[in-house]
Amino acid sequence: MLIVPLIERKRDGGALTAEEWSALVAAYTDGRVPDYQMAALLMAVLWRGLERPELAALTDAMLASGQRLAFDGWPTPRVDKHSTGGVGDKVSLVLAPLVAACGVAVPMMSGRGLGHTGGTLDKLEAIPGFRTTLSLAETKAQVMKLGCAMIGQTPEIAPADRRLYALRDVTGTVEAIPLIAASIMSKKLAEGLSALVLDVKRGSGAFLPRLEQSLELARTMIALGEDRGCPTVALLTAMDRPLGRACGNALETEEAIHALRGEGPEDLLEVTYALGVEMLLAAGVEKASKKARQRLGNAIASGVAAEKFEQVIEAQGGNPRVVEDPSVLPQAQAVEVYCAPATGVVTRVEPKIIGRAIVAMGGGRRQVEDAVDPTVGCVITVKPGDKVLAGEPIASVFAKDAAGVRLGFEALGQAIVIGDRLTAPPLPLVSHRVTKHGVEELKR
Amino acid sequence: MLIVPLIERKRDGGALTAEEWSALVAAYTDGRVPDYQMAALLMAVLWRGLERPELAALTDAMLASGQRLAFDGWPTPRVDKHSTGGVGDKVSLVLAPLVAACGVAVPMMSGRGLGHTGGTLDKLEAIPGFRTTLSLAETKAQVMKLGCAMIGQTPEIAPADRRLYALRDVTGTVEAIPLIAASIMSKKLAEGLSALVLDVKRGSGAFLPRLEQSLELARTMIALGEDRGCPTVALLTAMDRPLGRACGNALETEEAIHALRGEGPEDLLEVTYALGVEMLLAAGVEKASKKARQRLGNAIASGVAAEKFEQVIEAQGGNPRVVEDPSVLPQAQAVEVYCAPATGVVTRVEPKIIGRAIVAMGGGRRQVEDAVDPTVGCVITVKPGDKVLAGEPIASVFAKDAAGVRLGFEALGQAIVIGDRLTAPPLPLVSHRVTKHGVEELKR
Repeated sequence: MLIVPLIERKRDGGALTAEEWSALVAAYTDGRVPDYQMAALLMAVLWRGLERPELAALTDAMLASGQRLAFDGWPTPRVDKHSTGGVGDKVSLVLAPLVAACGVAVPMMSGRGLGHTGGTLDKLEAIPGFRTTLSLAETKAQVMKLGCAMIGQTPEIAPADRRLYALRDVTGTVEAIPLIAASIMSKKLAEGLSALVLDVKRGSGAFLPRLEQSLELARTMIALGEDRGCPTVALLTAMDRPLGRACGNALETEEAIHALRGEGPEDLLEVTYALGVEMLLAAGVEKASKKARQRLGNAIASGVAAEKFEQVIEAQGGNPRVVEDPSVLPQAQAVEVYCAPATGVVTRVEPKIIGRAIVAMGGGRRQVEDAVDPTVGCVITVKPGDKVLAGEPIASVFAKDAAGVRLGFEALGQAIVIGDRLTAPPLPLVSHRVTKHGVEELKR
Repeated sequence: MLIVPLIERKRDGGALTAEEWSALVAAYTDGRVPDYQMAALLMAVLWRGLERPELAALTDAMLASGQRLAFDGWPTPRVDKHSTGGVGDKVSLVLAPLVAACGVAVPMMSGRGLGHTGGTLDKLEAIPGFRTTLSLAETKAQVMKLGCAMIGQTPEIAPADRRLYALRDVTGTVEAIPLIAASIMSKKLAEGLSALVLDVKRGSGAFLPRLEQSLELARTMIALGEDRGCPTVALLTAMDRPLGRACGNALETEEAIHALRGEGPEDLLEVTYALGVEMLLAAGVEKASKKARQRLGNAIASGVAAEKFEQVIEAQGGNPRVVEDPSVLPQAQAVEVYCAPATGVVTRVEPKIIGRAIVAMGGGRRQVEDAVDPTVGCVITVKPGDKVLAGEPIASVFAKDAAGVRLGFEALGQAIVIGDRLTAPPLPLVSHRVTKHGVEELKR
């Protein structure tokens, strides 16, 4: 296979055929195309983009490189949620058991934290014993028994995506919308879903901060899903400040458990409910948003959602007592309260600074193979718009030692900006709903 | 060294500092930066370009990766010519001994054919015994003794360029003007030159066909040379048809020998003289073009230029009798005459088709390690504008067998277009002179 003419064609703004993408991905996965040629092609794709048939062919080729979950004949609808990632985004931990408790199966495959954003797998693994490395057969059995499994990308699913993602990560080619879309959708389409709901983050803490980028990514993924028989809906949600109050793996798991018991922070519950409503509607178990919202509320109020999480934790080897008693989670050695340095109004809580500080404190990864300290992080009790008094406690830092506390304090000092008044309003928490029919801006 | 932020910055249209380029090239040459990261960066450079300080830093870093010829204290001026490459371009074989015969030293370092264009080394190696792999020490000694050496890029010169060029060749990143300029100039600046003359080809058979591209490349290389104390001048010459009549290694060497004896085709001599005049002026051995042209003409008429070529061939292990008797060159097994298929006017002789056919016939390379058959090629005796009669011999094909002859005939059938009249005039042979002061369009 001659690769240079393909690179040159993409570089010059042309398109590759579906057959060429298919052969190329197969050859790359087999090791017949070297990384350096694929790296040059990926940069050309970032530059020139992909036409819709190219994107479909690339996604199909990545999907075809591995196995798929198949639930043939099983009548329960399967719906998953995917988030493009943010800081403090522990929605998956609440949403998966919650939706499963409402009669929709959730075969959830998540990722690890990388860059400044956290990852669901790291949060789940903060629970002592929790195992995210189920095989496809184990996953299928657990989904059919409990209605929910929460796993990492297995080696069986889309191996071409694994190789491509690893290459993109070290070649400055992560930020290409078609490549992001193909990567996400090649994994999600392997889950055997009836429908898919996307949480596309926008704002300074998102991978793609600008609204147009978020909309383009949403539209691209929706087209890919719909074209492949998987109805897909996206909500755009705010990531100009952390979601909820807790940032850091064990702290976020604890907050998710509180939310599952109905005690969670309001913004976390609002985003969770909005996504949950879409999942119940997409699954067809409810026809109206209002009824769907009620059903979710009931599952939390009755304790069924929390119980479902217990069942999932137990099935995956974790200590289910954590749901009753979050102090089962590993605890930080050093905890210090952070106080407002001035009187005024909180104008910004910058997610990227918080996310990077957690990595620096040992709670995230610089390299894929890095170990993660689940205990570190921070809890920020103020939001943009809140009034604060100098000396008032507004956050806590959880670290492994005094040096970690200092890193946390420094980050909070930079991230939490206090001014005279709010200069720009924070983004609406859930701002847009995107479907195959178009974009709807949501009323507050 | 963190490479991803550098790739991202270039990708997003920013610039790397001189220190960053320097460290990057050193790390790549040492093997500390993998090919896939460099490939992504090269594609980003092709996309975004390089700012002038970046280009200077990259060139300096490639130059610094190896050794340089040093002629400190030796009073003879050294001037080299570099051509961006074409089909039938055997100018170097005539020009180097000719200029050396006029008292200017020519330490000429050339390349091999790759793609559709030929390479001076392959043409020289058609001479039985000719050795192009002199060390730097041998080269220096020969230049100081004979005023001329004709060698390939030694492993000692700009090893970073060798690695980068090999990578560009397989990643679709050859056609970036700053990378072409840096590659050429890092080698030329290592030759210890007093001045440099560039032959920048334009037209359909050139690597960069469009005039603006040729001018930009010329200006870029001139800026690099002048900034580094090497006065640099460029001539833009026509590559919308082959230069001279012979295409193919041994055939071109034979034609070059004829030209050195004053019997060469007119267009080859015209380009050679134009470049030779620039070299004598740049070396300071003549002040006026007219005198310089006379001196070159005398060197040919007197036989001194041909004698100089004999000396160089002998010094480099080749059979010097070839200058007296070109039949010493290896001869093709199969020779067939190609006749005009129709009566009319030759409107095109397309160099790329000829160049590619020679590669297909075994006379060029698909891969760097391919062996080359020096005997194959063709001699085309018509030029655009010539009237021809159907059945009149207009070319000869030299091949290793009947299949090769067929390939040659097919190519000639496509390359030589016969029509009613010339639709567009051929490009002027030498059309522009570019110096640090600007561009001068030359009168015919």
